[in-house]
Amino acid sequence: MENIPNAVVKRLPMYYRHLGELKESGVERISSGELSERMNVTASQIRQDLNHFGGFGQQGYGYNVESLHTIIGNILGLNKKYHVIIVGAGNLGRALANYTNFEKSGFVITGIFDINPDLKGEIIRNVSVSHIDELETFLKRNKVDIAALTVPKAVAAGLADRMVKFGVNAFWNFAHVDLKVPEHVIVESVHLSDSLMRLSYSLSNLEK
Amino acid sequence: MENIPNAVVKRLPMYYRHLGELKESGVERISSGELSERMNVTASQIRQDLNHFGGFGQQGYGYNVESLHTIIGNILGLNKKYHVIIVGAGNLGRALANYTNFEKSGFVITGIFDINPDLKGEIIRNVSVSHIDELETFLKRNKVDIAALTVPKAVAAGLADRMVKFGVNAFWNFAHVDLKVPEHVIVESVHLSDSLMRLSYSLSNLEK
Repeated sequence: MENIPNAVVKRLPMYYRHLGELKESGVERISSGELSERMNVTASQIRQDLNHFGGFGQQGYGYNVESLHTIIGNILGLNKKYHVIIVGAGNLGRALANYTNFEKSGFVITGIFDINPDLKGEIIRNVSVSHIDELETFLKRNKVDIAALTVPKAVAAGLADRMVKFGVNAFWNFAHVDLKVPEHVIVESVHLSDSLMRLSYSLSNLEK
Repeated sequence: MENIPNAVVKRLPMYYRHLGELKESGVERISSGELSERMNVTASQIRQDLNHFGGFGQQGYGYNVESLHTIIGNILGLNKKYHVIIVGAGNLGRALANYTNFEKSGFVITGIFDINPDLKGEIIRNVSVSHIDELETFLKRNKVDIAALTVPKAVAAGLADRMVKFGVNAFWNFAHVDLKVPEHVIVESVHLSDSLMRLSYSLSNLEK
């Protein structure tokens, strides 16, 4: 794939989600105008975005929902299987582990780790929780594509370093810290506090 | 406040986070250059961003960490108190309820609701879980600034509608759906799947 602008990549999951909903409700084709109204993005933006990948619409016909859904899924890499471990078996880690949709999209949870020895052996969604001390041994024996970091920020960086050493190249980071990692390592952060602050910013400016 | 570009607003929580960390580690002042290195944003971007709010640096001195932290906190509306309810007491709802940092920043959880009658009366972080049928009564009696929606997507829109009718104007939406709400209502969505897909996109393009 050529270099796709970041803003386009950010919108792809939204396209995928809406096309999935349309597919589920039995819609077979949709014009960029209808898609635009549904998604709150201009029709020309949609056409431009999709042109990065070759453009899939037909003049006067619109987009075939099912095939566009599949194509965008493939672009997003959802036609592959990913081995995911969850580091931190607190509420957030459990929420991720129990989210069945992730598995449907190819993200298979193969390990869950926690520092609390009381949790060791607990079964969460068919996976037995291991103690964090077993992390390196696990990584030596199993290929891990993505590690979800659902731990306090004080320990997140140290854990990421440990995993990078054992070949983990992608982190889904929920710790409230920007991880410093080698350049080849991918970090996708979900900073819940940042999101909440954007909400309070909007609220507090609304009230003025 | 004049109209601040969205991209700037999106970066403000990151500034706030880094300044908070610097403050905690005892740093009193910082140049835009040092801040830039730390945050992976260019120094001119930082100066530009902060100029929207008057600009706070002094030539040759840099920024006063503590005062800039406070000022950005105020811009983000963190000097106010928000009454938050959590709708959906599953793992994700519990994770939010138990996140003490939110309370420190002024987000006080005043109610937790769930459709599961077995959860009624359970105490999560000093708040007793109510049945979802009690939502309207609660909203009549209590001012709610923000409702966190941690429910399955099939019920999210219906619940949001019910709350909008009773004056809730801001949603922190974790349901995997784009909510349609009246124009005056604020929605900040955290689509975890979208984030995971951006990760698989990066992974799958890395491998090529």
